Amino acid sequence: MTTVAAYAAPAAKAPLERTTIERREVGEHDVSIDIRFAGICHTDIHQVREGWGDAIFPMVPGHEIAGVVSEVGPGVTRFAVGDRVGVGCMVDSCRECDHCRAGREQYCDSGMTDTYNALDRNGQPTYGGYARRIVVDENYVLRIPDSLGLDVAAPLLCAGITTYSPLRRWGAGPGTKVAILGMGGLGHMGVKIAHALGAEVTVLSQSLRKRDDGLKMGADHYYATADPKTFDELRGTFDLIVSTVSAPLNLDSYLSLLRPEGTLANVGAPEEPVSLNLFSVIGGGRGLAGSMIGGIAETQEMLDFCAGHGIGAEIELIAADGINEAYERVMSSDVRYRFVIDTATI
Amino acid sequence: MTTVAAYAAPAAKAPLERTTIERREVGEHDVSIDIRFAGICHTDIHQVREGWGDAIFPMVPGHEIAGVVSEVGPGVTRFAVGDRVGVGCMVDSCRECDHCRAGREQYCDSGMTDTYNALDRNGQPTYGGYARRIVVDENYVLRIPDSLGLDVAAPLLCAGITTYSPLRRWGAGPGTKVAILGMGGLGHMGVKIAHALGAEVTVLSQSLRKRDDGLKMGADHYYATADPKTFDELRGTFDLIVSTVSAPLNLDSYLSLLRPEGTLANVGAPEEPVSLNLFSVIGGGRGLAGSMIGGIAETQEMLDFCAGHGIGAEIELIAADGINEAYERVMSSDVRYRFVIDTATI
Repeated sequence: MTTVAAYAAPAAKAPLERTTIERREVGEHDVSIDIRFAGICHTDIHQVREGWGDAIFPMVPGHEIAGVVSEVGPGVTRFAVGDRVGVGCMVDSCRECDHCRAGREQYCDSGMTDTYNALDRNGQPTYGGYARRIVVDENYVLRIPDSLGLDVAAPLLCAGITTYSPLRRWGAGPGTKVAILGMGGLGHMGVKIAHALGAEVTVLSQSLRKRDDGLKMGADHYYATADPKTFDELRGTFDLIVSTVSAPLNLDSYLSLLRPEGTLANVGAPEEPVSLNLFSVIGGGRGLAGSMIGGIAETQEMLDFCAGHGIGAEIELIAADGINEAYERVMSSDVRYRFVIDTATI
Repeated sequence: MTTVAAYAAPAAKAPLERTTIERREVGEHDVSIDIRFAGICHTDIHQVREGWGDAIFPMVPGHEIAGVVSEVGPGVTRFAVGDRVGVGCMVDSCRECDHCRAGREQYCDSGMTDTYNALDRNGQPTYGGYARRIVVDENYVLRIPDSLGLDVAAPLLCAGITTYSPLRRWGAGPGTKVAILGMGGLGHMGVKIAHALGAEVTVLSQSLRKRDDGLKMGADHYYATADPKTFDELRGTFDLIVSTVSAPLNLDSYLSLLRPEGTLANVGAPEEPVSLNLFSVIGGGRGLAGSMIGGIAETQEMLDFCAGHGIGAEIELIAADGINEAYERVMSSDVRYRFVIDTATI
């Protein structure tokens, strides 16, 4: 075990503070990564505040990790010291079930091992990216192409893959009309990626406050969902809506914006149940689906795609002592568009 | 106009009674059909009772129609007098929108013309199959293969296509596990068709009362949804669940029975909104979708498929004066599995 500086929440809802954690020794197939940047995902805040149920404390959040390989185990074949790498939401899975073998490790039958707030396959707690170093099996490490800055690449490991995967699965591309619902950390990545895939992109955001940004990122249209006229005007328009919002949604209204056989894919969600009239899906053969990050191979594909299209996240770089304030700003949607921690300041 | 004997509800919630209606003259592209059999669909009862909103009276229900061509217009090319034919839930659509041109007339941009309780393109009310004769544009008439009895073929025009279409769309076939939720008029067709498609079929029914029937129709497994153990045992099992029930459902429970990326396709639905926790779809990348009948070409494909596999509906043949009693029995799920009216008794 080696001691690593980190930022942790000592208990549920407590502010994060500087501390140290123990990382395992570098095993046969492990890669040790000097973390350079860690994105702040809305999920981090949900987990620290136990919004999604009981959590493990102390908690070191962070599953948008970018850094440089500092050591490799003797059995490692895919990475060498000095490589630019990333780690996302998972650090392990069973590797044997149908889903793992099909490259959908996020849906592993026995559950993927979350990068933090989980127990690893040996029963040890996992700690995330708000730290100076992490040790991860090479099979769950991604390569960050040279053309992507590590700071703007970090958020791709969650926000990027979370939007890329449903956009690909439901066929966003030339000739399709895609709406991105919510213009935050996930949403702004959705806009960039959907545009790069060739889709006609519409942002559906509460207000027009971020309109200029959205259009600059590649949106073709931008509508305010607070304006009821939006729902009349866009009725039956979209092949795919990717909803990134975690506020309660009027699902029936959003489903009405889909073309027949279109899909409303949810990657964000409120903690409380929502109401749905099933006729909203039956009438037009529509679908309401969910999507959770993406598999390892797909995450690499996304990183390569983003590098090829010059896509990084729009970030506000902060020092570690600004994490708690950043959490408050995320909660009030006051960030354009992702906070990234410079982990040298931990 | 010609006068035709029919059974109609004179007003909302009123019992059906013998009456006459006017059918249009046989036009250039029309086919006149001597109706032999008409199935009673749960929808008929919803419509007569205005469960789905205001309706047009008098109402002649019936969109599961089988009969024989008695006259054709001069421009008709696909049918001749004496042909065995069927009519389902629609008798027209715009024929110009993307959906019509793609053979998904049921999702026509301007709305398909329902076989009854609608106004046709000329503003005249449409009347359904509880009648001795109907006049329909040949493009909305289906051919019933010789090997299918007209009586057991009638319910295929709604119950058959309504289950066939989602089974095909979501890939039911060898190597897939499909559940049919509800063992009524739609459900029993779903079992037969899913089995014929090569899927491993499980019936999820409230009780085990119809278990023997289900297994005989091709189900491999049969579970009672009233037994909570069913939900533990079948967790994460199905690639596809086709829900045919119109009672309120615990969607989260049924979604938990899907494998990752599986789909719960609803072809029945309660009139009231239901509750849904979006995490039920996000966690496993699952989908909750709807499906409404099928297009004309797909309906023909279904009829040919059913004929090839010797599949007809299980029916109770009734005389027209038994319609009102039949409605009551449908409402109390006391029918195995579809009432079909012998229209010679009208």
